[in-house]
Amino acid sequence: MSAWVLPDHIADVLPSEARHIEELRRLLLDTARGYGYELVMPPLLEHLESLLTGTGQALDLQTFKLVDQLSGRMMGLRADTTPQVARIDAHLLNRAGVTRLCYCGPVLHTQPDRPHATREPLQLGAEIYGHAGLEADLEILQLALDQLQIAQVQDLQVDLADARIVASLLEGLQLSDEVRLQIHSALASKNSSELAQLTRGFDPVIQRALLALVDLYGDASVLDQAAQVLPATPAIQEALAQLRWLASHIGQVKVSFDLADARGYAYYSGLRFAIYAANASDAMVRGGRYDGVGNVFGHQIDRERPAVGFSLDLKQWVSAVPALALKAAIRAPWGDASDLRAAIARLRAQGETVVCVLPGHESEVDEFHCDRTLVQAAGQWVVQAL
Amino acid sequence: MSAWVLPDHIADVLPSEARHIEELRRLLLDTARGYGYELVMPPLLEHLESLLTGTGQALDLQTFKLVDQLSGRMMGLRADTTPQVARIDAHLLNRAGVTRLCYCGPVLHTQPDRPHATREPLQLGAEIYGHAGLEADLEILQLALDQLQIAQVQDLQVDLADARIVASLLEGLQLSDEVRLQIHSALASKNSSELAQLTRGFDPVIQRALLALVDLYGDASVLDQAAQVLPATPAIQEALAQLRWLASHIGQVKVSFDLADARGYAYYSGLRFAIYAANASDAMVRGGRYDGVGNVFGHQIDRERPAVGFSLDLKQWVSAVPALALKAAIRAPWGDASDLRAAIARLRAQGETVVCVLPGHESEVDEFHCDRTLVQAAGQWVVQAL
Repeated sequence: MSAWVLPDHIADVLPSEARHIEELRRLLLDTARGYGYELVMPPLLEHLESLLTGTGQALDLQTFKLVDQLSGRMMGLRADTTPQVARIDAHLLNRAGVTRLCYCGPVLHTQPDRPHATREPLQLGAEIYGHAGLEADLEILQLALDQLQIAQVQDLQVDLADARIVASLLEGLQLSDEVRLQIHSALASKNSSELAQLTRGFDPVIQRALLALVDLYGDASVLDQAAQVLPATPAIQEALAQLRWLASHIGQVKVSFDLADARGYAYYSGLRFAIYAANASDAMVRGGRYDGVGNVFGHQIDRERPAVGFSLDLKQWVSAVPALALKAAIRAPWGDASDLRAAIARLRAQGETVVCVLPGHESEVDEFHCDRTLVQAAGQWVVQAL
Repeated sequence: MSAWVLPDHIADVLPSEARHIEELRRLLLDTARGYGYELVMPPLLEHLESLLTGTGQALDLQTFKLVDQLSGRMMGLRADTTPQVARIDAHLLNRAGVTRLCYCGPVLHTQPDRPHATREPLQLGAEIYGHAGLEADLEILQLALDQLQIAQVQDLQVDLADARIVASLLEGLQLSDEVRLQIHSALASKNSSELAQLTRGFDPVIQRALLALVDLYGDASVLDQAAQVLPATPAIQEALAQLRWLASHIGQVKVSFDLADARGYAYYSGLRFAIYAANASDAMVRGGRYDGVGNVFGHQIDRERPAVGFSLDLKQWVSAVPALALKAAIRAPWGDASDLRAAIARLRAQGETVVCVLPGHESEVDEFHCDRTLVQAAGQWVVQAL
């Protein structure tokens, strides 16, 4: 095998795609900044227990582990940035009030998430801490929708779910983690027969409700159906009321519901959402509420902070998002005459790309599209169309 | 030990520093783009032999290793991006002519480089492939100096060296890698007595020349001295002539020479440079020529490409570079009235940061400095000074 072959699900990003990712990165971070989200940069490497406490088994399996030669302790490469940002909020910033944070950087996965997924997504996300009310959920949803619209992604659909519905039905049951995961997975894949098997012997009210969840997806009428067929626990009533409020405040975007959906990282504690675009097979953005993730990082028991946020993969976005038009460049001859150097510096300071043709390479085709050239005319350096 | 303590020499980057790094990142990538350098994003993970072939033992020791669960093969986390970019030039782009590439992303080191260095530098660099002439070396030097000047770094000094001088003196000698490294290290630390020990039994001409190198640092007069005391091999004559040419073309910056300096990665093959600033203890930029690094990645033996480039650590830069002034933000009340939402959206589209005060948090101090507020007056939403 040649030395240059990359590992499976690992790829170089070549110039045109890299430029596109960089444009999107700036656009999305600037949009988040416009909402008051401050950028943070957590490290790629942390002690394993700090990366994985309270995040569940799925993230553990996705995390590469290695030994710190300085301490002999196990470290992990982050597979998700959210727990790190929660740690920064809870411990480092340690503010009493609302804190808005955003981030953009690579994460690494031991296995691809989906058949053609990269194992090195470029994760960008935003999180709001310190406000338990729905206004925070709505702001995060609006920011995510704004980012998609600013990037000119068309035909958006928001899928809403709530982690409290399934959690409330399973509450108090003595279930192994394995069975709990199997129930989540049967619900997600709408597999009624497997779900019936898994819930054999459950309280008939609970079993009937779990089986009913399989059909509770679609438009807002789902919420009315749910109110009739699900037990009226406080958690379920609150979840349904909040989903209704959010859907009515999102605005012009198509909204659908999937009350059986309990996939994803274990840390979600309330609203969960995914935003889909017509030309993308997987969700463009996923997010939700995860009150309490930062708790394990605080010194005191009262350092449990309400939190809601989203994340996305910029490498996935470039396939669904139109690139900005590339500005054409200017060719210039190589030379050390000070008037030529000054003319080139002036053009670059104006934001132009000026490619100097090195001696002997005059007949090469430029990778940059050059539509102008710098020539000397009557003792002056002037830009001419090519 | 608390769960949140980070490994030694690993740190979070908090908001004000993260914003500063992001500003510098954009400024430097845009400057490189103005010169015609195309952005690429190589992966963090590669097969070990592809990361380390031809790069020497120092990089091997700096590289974290882990097992790919998909293939069982060893992978490394990049400790340096240059060999990856050389691979992209040699194999993926595979162009005949001049190729200019730049990059910006984290690298990871098993051990810190210096006592207070991070093990996760944010490496930014630029490379030019396909031109063996000095014009490429000069362009890379000018780009590095431009980046420093655009970032308003003051009192620059360029240190020039050439890997061919020491290499030419040691050529043909049967030396173990260990002794060769010890000689490089004694030269770098100007340790004449150790150097005399290490070179005992060498051809007296070579030994005398190596010992003379220890004093060959300082201004341009060093080059005249070198021409007298070093053997006039073709490689040494060419190196001295090229150093003279480059120094005379750099422009207004202070230049010094250190002909004994052969530190750094094993891949340098010609010019080496470092740029220092008055308020930074370590070099701000390091670079040089490394013809042939991409060679092992090509299919054919003639895929050896001339290459010259530099790299820098943005995390180190923020301590030496003044931050841009932060634009103050606007406070706005939370509300779902469409005229309020529209007024906020308009301000954000104009590039303003508008922080919505969530219900119940009216008396909190904003982390963003807000110098204005959005208020309703005579039925209109208007911005007022605070």
